[in-house]
Amino acid sequence: MEWTRESRYKKYSEWDAETLLKLQAQATASKYQMSYHIRPQSGLLNDPNGFSYFNDEYHVFYQSYPFGAVHGLKSWVHLTSPDLVHWKNLGLAINADTKYDSHGAYSGSARVIDDKLFLMYTGNHRSKEWVRYPYQIGAIMDKDNNITKLDKPMIEPVDHITEHFRDPQLLKHRDEYFVILGAQDAETKTGKISLFRSKDLKNWQDLGYLDFTEEEMGYMVECPNLVFVDDQPVLIFCPQGLDKKVADYENIYPNMYIVGSDVRLDKAKFNTDQKAPLNLDDGFDVYATQAFNAPNGKAYAISWIGLPDISYPTDSENWANCLSQVKELSIVDGELYQRPVPSMASLREEGTLVRSEEVFDGQQIVHSAASKHYELKLDLAAGQNGKLFLAANKDLSQGIEINFSTADDAFLTVDRSKAGIPFAEDYGTTRTIALPANKQLSLDIFVDGSVCEIFVNNGRHTLTLRFFAPDGNNKIAFTSDKKLQYTGTYWNMKNI
Amino acid sequence: MEWTRESRYKKYSEWDAETLLKLQAQATASKYQMSYHIRPQSGLLNDPNGFSYFNDEYHVFYQSYPFGAVHGLKSWVHLTSPDLVHWKNLGLAINADTKYDSHGAYSGSARVIDDKLFLMYTGNHRSKEWVRYPYQIGAIMDKDNNITKLDKPMIEPVDHITEHFRDPQLLKHRDEYFVILGAQDAETKTGKISLFRSKDLKNWQDLGYLDFTEEEMGYMVECPNLVFVDDQPVLIFCPQGLDKKVADYENIYPNMYIVGSDVRLDKAKFNTDQKAPLNLDDGFDVYATQAFNAPNGKAYAISWIGLPDISYPTDSENWANCLSQVKELSIVDGELYQRPVPSMASLREEGTLVRSEEVFDGQQIVHSAASKHYELKLDLAAGQNGKLFLAANKDLSQGIEINFSTADDAFLTVDRSKAGIPFAEDYGTTRTIALPANKQLSLDIFVDGSVCEIFVNNGRHTLTLRFFAPDGNNKIAFTSDKKLQYTGTYWNMKNI
Repeated sequence: MEWTRESRYKKYSEWDAETLLKLQAQATASKYQMSYHIRPQSGLLNDPNGFSYFNDEYHVFYQSYPFGAVHGLKSWVHLTSPDLVHWKNLGLAINADTKYDSHGAYSGSARVIDDKLFLMYTGNHRSKEWVRYPYQIGAIMDKDNNITKLDKPMIEPVDHITEHFRDPQLLKHRDEYFVILGAQDAETKTGKISLFRSKDLKNWQDLGYLDFTEEEMGYMVECPNLVFVDDQPVLIFCPQGLDKKVADYENIYPNMYIVGSDVRLDKAKFNTDQKAPLNLDDGFDVYATQAFNAPNGKAYAISWIGLPDISYPTDSENWANCLSQVKELSIVDGELYQRPVPSMASLREEGTLVRSEEVFDGQQIVHSAASKHYELKLDLAAGQNGKLFLAANKDLSQGIEINFSTADDAFLTVDRSKAGIPFAEDYGTTRTIALPANKQLSLDIFVDGSVCEIFVNNGRHTLTLRFFAPDGNNKIAFTSDKKLQYTGTYWNMKNI
Repeated sequence: MEWTRESRYKKYSEWDAETLLKLQAQATASKYQMSYHIRPQSGLLNDPNGFSYFNDEYHVFYQSYPFGAVHGLKSWVHLTSPDLVHWKNLGLAINADTKYDSHGAYSGSARVIDDKLFLMYTGNHRSKEWVRYPYQIGAIMDKDNNITKLDKPMIEPVDHITEHFRDPQLLKHRDEYFVILGAQDAETKTGKISLFRSKDLKNWQDLGYLDFTEEEMGYMVECPNLVFVDDQPVLIFCPQGLDKKVADYENIYPNMYIVGSDVRLDKAKFNTDQKAPLNLDDGFDVYATQAFNAPNGKAYAISWIGLPDISYPTDSENWANCLSQVKELSIVDGELYQRPVPSMASLREEGTLVRSEEVFDGQQIVHSAASKHYELKLDLAAGQNGKLFLAANKDLSQGIEINFSTADDAFLTVDRSKAGIPFAEDYGTTRTIALPANKQLSLDIFVDGSVCEIFVNNGRHTLTLRFFAPDGNNKIAFTSDKKLQYTGTYWNMKNI
């Protein structure tokens, strides 16, 4: 169907239920579907929202448009989990049903306050003349997961910020509440992180912008997220239109981070020794990552696997995107690490040991017919060059190609140009990271339908990508000039 | 809301999607919800349909009305499983969208024919004057799960059967196709099993009624199902209005079976030495059981846990009922046994050994705070009398009470009168089975939200019940005049 402004913003109550049931069945039946990642029941999923721990379980919400693979009238869908791995989809949680969120219940955060989960999100309102008014809205969720929106917005539009003013993260810092928000400065039309302060969650003081960089952050910053990792403040955000001289990236919009030395929100100051923002994920498809500090002392992150303004092959199946697995954050020798949570191991079926096979027809076969849903851990000895193929056909002319060296000029390149249906090619088909010279390389690779998450060297890097392989491309194999030395384990993964 | 004929038969396309999303969220959020049984995404579930093995996986469908806990316009929802335990809900599969099934795609069966799954079901059509015409419809599912309905009904209404003519089971017997159907004889208004024969699935010969009993089977027989168990034919069916002198039962309508000595469908003859039909399940809530012979040589059964014309407490939450776990059928010493399939063990978390505890305050506590989703295996020594309480409060004044004797007059009684919200009390609140005198009693008890399935003596009996316990009633304990001797294991159960 042709999507118009009118159809995209049609109320859910004006869609018919048969259409929805068919869209749900269509999404579920897709051969590209994930089985252990959070995915939309139908339609489009984007940002994770309200990632938190409350009432003895983890909560996450996602931005949902149930009626197609377009950014239409958004709502929040709610999921809960005991272990950050097994998620239960509780369905529609925040609908666009008030004046202040009439054109979408946009992204936001959650924070436990007293015995409730306090949600704060951006209500997207458009006037008849289609002028956008962003309202920052509060809502309170009780222990039965009932959500009540506050009558009035917590923060109204402000003069010094354009209509691009969204994605509030509610924080508590030195006994006061703060909100950081993505913003576009009205005068300079540059990307900013807006900052507000309150003692009572009612009266909010505009503190202007957070000072976290000397550089211009493009024309907009989305999804700012402050989290403490091993006691260091880490600022995660999505600058749009960022000059690549400021920080290198290849995706249409990057999801970046800065590790800070200290932060004083009351002084609007985030100090860092880091020269420039870095990509949170070195792959193709991570955006809008949300992280929070859990009561167990750990910092957890979850990402949208998908990017704004990119068409994905499942658009034709009327669904799009998924969330990443949850990643545990840590800082080791000043570097941010992202690791799978330990509970991910509970998804493993019985493992198969992987050892250096003999070279046959130029290949060392790891698995001749892998499942669509697996984990593969590999340790590759130092001093080698080769290629690892995932989701490959028999002669390896198709597949995800992971080119690597563990010798002097050590690197890893993921090439998805021959992985299947092409998409987002304007932004390149390879991603490369440098590796430490002459060291063993450890890979922890998660494949789930059309998603691949690669954890490099115990989480020092992650590379995330979507791929849409032809049926039957299920081979895993190495090629090299000479026999490669490696060990590892392969597990089929259970559904969540 | 008040349900009218008009609202119950409103097309799915005339319902709005927001209502459906809210119904789905409401069903999922219910504290009575099952986590390892097949349950409706929203609304009402009834009969299992099309239980089969095809394309390397198991298939089952269920009768669905998504918009409330009423028997409205029915469709088929499709699920698949690799192991008969982990089911994936693929959503709407057969909708009521032709003239012949305009008022409901009612129950039916599935059979692999060539490389397709052939589905046969009853299309419910009503004229403007609300006269019902039952059509037996064929549909073909390919390996991508696409279903195409045949243009014309396979079997039209026939003169000697009233409008009550439904639930076709397609069979192959001695190189011909047969269909057995539930029927009400037009002249006598008694329950019959109608029988048709075809060589080509196109031209069907009416063979009249299957001769399987001398007795009158009430005013209607629903869901006839022929399956071979250890090479013996077993006829499962649901007689409505059956005289209790013919066969004893307590539920509003029983689900019964007859073990046959031999069957000749071409001669319309099912021979048996069994004196009278027996209850397939000795509990409260099993109906419409469907069984089939799988390619692995085993016979599997699955039941609707729910009964026609009974209101359940979750009706107020706009959802109702679930399917049973799959039961493997066998015949041991002439008796039909139903056992959990081995894969059920894959749902077990780490087990806790259960041993005879000391009596304290008159109780022997098995678990002071059980999960809502568990399996409990118990072996009770011979020569004892006592009570086992499940989902009980602290002083055991509330709970499911299982009264038993393993002494001379051995028996087991399940009493749900104090288990929580009362329902279906007109049909009694206890069910009793006789047990062999002075023998050890083995129980394998599955509790899942508001469902309890009790397998007695390795499947010699099953007792299935719904119960709706108050929050916090999670104790498992014995009471007796003296200390009871028992051993066992308790497992929390994973979600499917």
